[in-house]
Amino acid sequence: MSSIYGKNIKVTIFGQSHSKAIGVSIEGLPAGIKIDMEELEAFMQRRAPGQGPFTTQRKESDRPEILSGLVDNVTCGAPVAAIIRNKDTRPGDYDQIRDVPRPSHADYTANIKFGGFHDYSGGGHFSGRLTAPLCIAGGLCLQLLRQKNIHIGAHIASIGNVSDTSFDPAGAEPADIELPKSKPFPVIDDARGEQMLAAINEARLAGDSLGGVIECAVVGVPAGIGDPIFDGMENCIALAVFGIPAVKGIEFGSGFAGSSLRGSANNDPFIVEENRIKTKTNNHGGILGGITTGMPVIFRVAIKPTPSIGVEQDSISYLSMENVKLSIKGRHDPCIVPRAIPCVEAAAAIAVLDRLLESSKY
Amino acid sequence: MSSIYGKNIKVTIFGQSHSKAIGVSIEGLPAGIKIDMEELEAFMQRRAPGQGPFTTQRKESDRPEILSGLVDNVTCGAPVAAIIRNKDTRPGDYDQIRDVPRPSHADYTANIKFGGFHDYSGGGHFSGRLTAPLCIAGGLCLQLLRQKNIHIGAHIASIGNVSDTSFDPAGAEPADIELPKSKPFPVIDDARGEQMLAAINEARLAGDSLGGVIECAVVGVPAGIGDPIFDGMENCIALAVFGIPAVKGIEFGSGFAGSSLRGSANNDPFIVEENRIKTKTNNHGGILGGITTGMPVIFRVAIKPTPSIGVEQDSISYLSMENVKLSIKGRHDPCIVPRAIPCVEAAAAIAVLDRLLESSKY
Amino acid sequence: MSSIYGKNIKVTIFGQSHSKAIGVSIEGLPAGIKIDMEELEAFMQRRAPGQGPFTTQRKESDRPEILSGLVDNVTCGAPVAAIIRNKDTRPGDYDQIRDVPRPSHADYTANIKFGGFHDYSGGGHFSGRLTAPLCIAGGLCLQLLRQKNIHIGAHIASIGNVSDTSFDPAGAEPADIELPKSKPFPVIDDARGEQMLAAINEARLAGDSLGGVIECAVVGVPAGIGDPIFDGMENCIALAVFGIPAVKGIEFGSGFAGSSLRGSANNDPFIVEENRIKTKTNNHGGILGGITTGMPVIFRVAIKPTPSIGVEQDSISYLSMENVKLSIKGRHDPCIVPRAIPCVEAAAAIAVLDRLLESSKY
Amino acid sequence: MSSIYGKNIKVTIFGQSHSKAIGVSIEGLPAGIKIDMEELEAFMQRRAPGQGPFTTQRKESDRPEILSGLVDNVTCGAPVAAIIRNKDTRPGDYDQIRDVPRPSHADYTANIKFGGFHDYSGGGHFSGRLTAPLCIAGGLCLQLLRQKNIHIGAHIASIGNVSDTSFDPAGAEPADIELPKSKPFPVIDDARGEQMLAAINEARLAGDSLGGVIECAVVGVPAGIGDPIFDGMENCIALAVFGIPAVKGIEFGSGFAGSSLRGSANNDPFIVEENRIKTKTNNHGGILGGITTGMPVIFRVAIKPTPSIGVEQDSISYLSMENVKLSIKGRHDPCIVPRAIPCVEAAAAIAVLDRLLESSKY
Repeated sequence: MSSIYGKNIKVTIFGQSHSKAIGVSIEGLPAGIKIDMEELEAFMQRRAPGQGPFTTQRKESDRPEILSGLVDNVTCGAPVAAIIRNKDTRPGDYDQIRDVPRPSHADYTANIKFGGFHDYSGGGHFSGRLTAPLCIAGGLCLQLLRQKNIHIGAHIASIGNVSDTSFDPAGAEPADIELPKSKPFPVIDDARGEQMLAAINEARLAGDSLGGVIECAVVGVPAGIGDPIFDGMENCIALAVFGIPAVKGIEFGSGFAGSSLRGSANNDPFIVEENRIKTKTNNHGGILGGITTGMPVIFRVAIKPTPSIGVEQDSISYLSMENVKLSIKGRHDPCIVPRAIPCVEAAAAIAVLDRLLESSKY
Repeated sequence: MSSIYGKNIKVTIFGQSHSKAIGVSIEGLPAGIKIDMEELEAFMQRRAPGQGPFTTQRKESDRPEILSGLVDNVTCGAPVAAIIRNKDTRPGDYDQIRDVPRPSHADYTANIKFGGFHDYSGGGHFSGRLTAPLCIAGGLCLQLLRQKNIHIGAHIASIGNVSDTSFDPAGAEPADIELPKSKPFPVIDDARGEQMLAAINEARLAGDSLGGVIECAVVGVPAGIGDPIFDGMENCIALAVFGIPAVKGIEFGSGFAGSSLRGSANNDPFIVEENRIKTKTNNHGGILGGITTGMPVIFRVAIKPTPSIGVEQDSISYLSMENVKLSIKGRHDPCIVPRAIPCVEAAAAIAVLDRLLESSKY
Repeated sequence: MSSIYGKNIKVTIFGQSHSKAIGVSIEGLPAGIKIDMEELEAFMQRRAPGQGPFTTQRKESDRPEILSGLVDNVTCGAPVAAIIRNKDTRPGDYDQIRDVPRPSHADYTANIKFGGFHDYSGGGHFSGRLTAPLCIAGGLCLQLLRQKNIHIGAHIASIGNVSDTSFDPAGAEPADIELPKSKPFPVIDDARGEQMLAAINEARLAGDSLGGVIECAVVGVPAGIGDPIFDGMENCIALAVFGIPAVKGIEFGSGFAGSSLRGSANNDPFIVEENRIKTKTNNHGGILGGITTGMPVIFRVAIKPTPSIGVEQDSISYLSMENVKLSIKGRHDPCIVPRAIPCVEAAAAIAVLDRLLESSKY
Repeated sequence: MSSIYGKNIKVTIFGQSHSKAIGVSIEGLPAGIKIDMEELEAFMQRRAPGQGPFTTQRKESDRPEILSGLVDNVTCGAPVAAIIRNKDTRPGDYDQIRDVPRPSHADYTANIKFGGFHDYSGGGHFSGRLTAPLCIAGGLCLQLLRQKNIHIGAHIASIGNVSDTSFDPAGAEPADIELPKSKPFPVIDDARGEQMLAAINEARLAGDSLGGVIECAVVGVPAGIGDPIFDGMENCIALAVFGIPAVKGIEFGSGFAGSSLRGSANNDPFIVEENRIKTKTNNHGGILGGITTGMPVIFRVAIKPTPSIGVEQDSISYLSMENVKLSIKGRHDPCIVPRAIPCVEAAAAIAVLDRLLESSKY
């Protein structure tokens, strides 16, 4: 099994980069929830390609067609299924990689895993394009969560060596984390954003690419969500987020930096404020023992630089079993971090809703 | 659900820090595999408490009693179940935390999650003690993997601000990663180890604690293990590793550092050596598209400093709903990183064997 | 969760009777398997409505559109997704049941389960129409199984009080169980079939309906498939078969009749024939301890009479909370048993392939 | 996977007939539920061997030792784990079956499944003894259900050719279905019970065995429990019940008999009584579309005659690959139906509680 996520909701993703369509079925959504289709499409647009210098020029409307599960845009309890037709496909672009795998791509591993029968065009089922159905599911979950006053928002924490400012770990409000969504380039500090764009352009002109870090916050999640050991909030968010191609790391709260501190510096004291229990600081990232504390859930995700680059690289030929040179044709993002932002929000939304539904039983 | 891991094998963990016993059932192990019980016990000893200045003085033999699943130490296809009796229990030590949750512990979240009915003694089901059954399962998986020439080994990458040298990402051999296991303090560079021990002692004398980073390598895993999207090797290892208390982050290959590089610097060129396909470098950490490349799988885990410290901290009282001062009695590790090493190996072994069994079907 | 089946393959079904489309995603099919699309469509036709006096006159071509997972009709390892557009929908036919639930239908339970938000048209997600995507998945599994020389076939064992002859439990050959598939009315003894058709017509003219029993055989399955306790072949086939609406019972081998015998009469002696171990009789239905013996797997399924009938019935009105009379309009099968035959074959194929892939690991 | 059941609760069973111990872990039970240990032990006694002429003379106290999950007999949210030590083991009794499989037993299939490495003593993991941990889990679930006024009770519907009277499908009250539990021989009509006992004794004296049918009712389950298609109440109960060795069939409501009726005779009209919606009859067995209607859930289970019999049978020798004669030594039940009653109640309780916890989310 591979393309199904969740226990209380089940998100089943299907499709390849150049198959007839890509799509998703989401099972377990409560019935009677009104879905705002315009909002869903606006969310999809944040991930869609073809907008601005830092993305592939492949043109896809990415408007989901809902096949089932909604009656007059209200969930009816049946699985919500939606598809997106692949339009602007150019399989021809990929004949080359049939014999010569692209470095740091899944071409080679897919070829081994599926005995050479994998759909190699555009990365097939491994393509970043598969994050579109992920975003359909996540976009729906985000709407359900917001109806419970749970907000999820992400921004670009860094690209190359340029860093954005961070969310306030202990004090972030819904408005703070919703703000970057409204921007064409989702950062907190627009001046830093300009520097990031410059760095991306520089890389692009050099036929190269850049990676970065995404910071995501979940605000308004009640205390007590998640389970011990293997169904903890960290396990579940990590499981979902690593479903996004190019993700190579995740840390919660003070994460790796916190691991170099002493306990007295990293611990978060409990305090009572207005008869509510909170923590003074939030190095724990809103999660203790796998369960939410009611503080913002904060995590950061490492996105590797786009492996598809124009500059010549070393690779091999399956046929000749010799080393060959490769320069990748086709249309690629010099930096996929901006488009990965809604994907991270989507993955987090799916994980949080899944755990939220686990609670309050019997 | 919370304490069950896996799809092809199922590891079910049960017990609390001060319950009659803790234990595990491992289902799906192939039949006919000879288990070396002495080796399993030696592995358990690496995690066991009560050895040396950096660990709790709680005394537990931690010798697993196998209840089923083995006939003359050979797997018979039935679930392998094992338990460890809790002997040196001192529930009295924990009366205090019934009303006053320990900062950065699961006391508070467990209390909310289970409506005050949780077993608070020693952290109950959330205790690090539950990594003992995890290690029983992992120890068995390690033996099965080694019979397939797959080796898993970890070392302390850093404690506080002292760093060990790293495994050679592209060239690590079984002997290299098995070496630290033979040492009382599992590092590559013993001089650095001395400095780490000094830092731990310093913290201990100050009634404080330290965290650190663990690096783990899987050598000999064939290419083609793992699945796209949600059952990728990264997803599965992360899911298992976050089952270890105090883990707050994980990164594969070049991880967070790699996300600041350009594609041309982070990509790993394919090369043909002795008619085998390899990569020149290993920034991808042995995993592309969720599937192993045949290169060593390398990942690092962030361990937060032990939250239980002697120095006075701020917390609250459930009863009075007022801020109170807390200094923790009881026996605790000033640094759990050394004892977490076999736990990380165990979690990785469970995840790798589970994915390995997924392959080669039909 | 509700509409996903399997562990080694995952079949995800979505859609409602009158939604835009119904469909399925099948995950875990081995890569490199050639699919015969004509054969799949021929299989779908056996379930399709609008053929002959005993079926609803609703017209649906039921030709599946493959969206992904196949490249030149060969499985590529990615999920195989397919949809069928709903064309001949007449929601108007169902306004009545919004307020008045049809006796022995899911109208009432769906209304309670989903708080009145369920899609009531034609039974929504509970409709027999959802067996079309089940048959897409099952049709694919049947082809994979046949490539392993495993054949699955079913026939009408009885309708009303008319019984067909049975498969030879211990001696059924592939040809024997494939035969009924070739007939418009799938029985072994055509004379009995004529009597069954007469009984169906009689019921139809009376505005009434009939049920029946289906016998299904799996021939060629090797010994050793299935697992003890909860993943036994019986558990898994039952779980899948009860996914077909109107199924109310299942029995394996001598089943209920065998439970009245003595052990000496019901036991199946082992014998050696041509150096192969077999059983002389097959009261065990090819399964012992949940695991196949290599003898034909034989089971019978009870199908209740179609609940939708023209004759006036007693029901209630949600609005008035009073007893009311109901005579059902719309187009319905006086007997769904013939169309249920491929559904039972499909469910069995999914279960058998899922267990088959469980075996041969490590 | 094989010995784990459930989605909202997870029941993990381990052990073999002659292993050190057998046991179970139950995960997902709500916290704060008081468990009556005496009641649990009384329930276990109904399954325990060594009582009366119709059971094996093997002596086992079958008193479960709770290892974890309870604090002062109250669930704490952690998995409840319990074991039973195997005391009266006589592996010697089974040397014979190492080479000669017992007809209609799992000896042969286990041998193939596990390549000859299975634990053959007493049937190993396939033994009826494994229903003891099933009953521990089920006994706990029964207590939780009863605290929600849901009662589950079963009785012997028939043994050989002697039938008991049936529960009133539409009118059964808790007292009606609890009654048989209080009897040493659980029937409704004691006169019929005497005839059944006579038939069992007759078979026993002939060195033979008998099977039978068990009828089980669930009273008080609210309407709306269960899910469409694969998580229906029928699917889930069947999946659990086929986990009991010797079960070969299951039917709900009018079942196989109902399949020969016309719709007008089998349909259950809805009626309003005291402003509550009910059905006049209950041929649907309390389940429509996989979801409970609020009427009693009624099902019958076919139990095959005990395959272990004293009379000489034909079997084969693995070593000589020749036909041989076999008469089984050891201690066996001439009829396991009476002891299977609490097992069926247990399986039903696990399935019902699992589905009950699925509902009421978000």
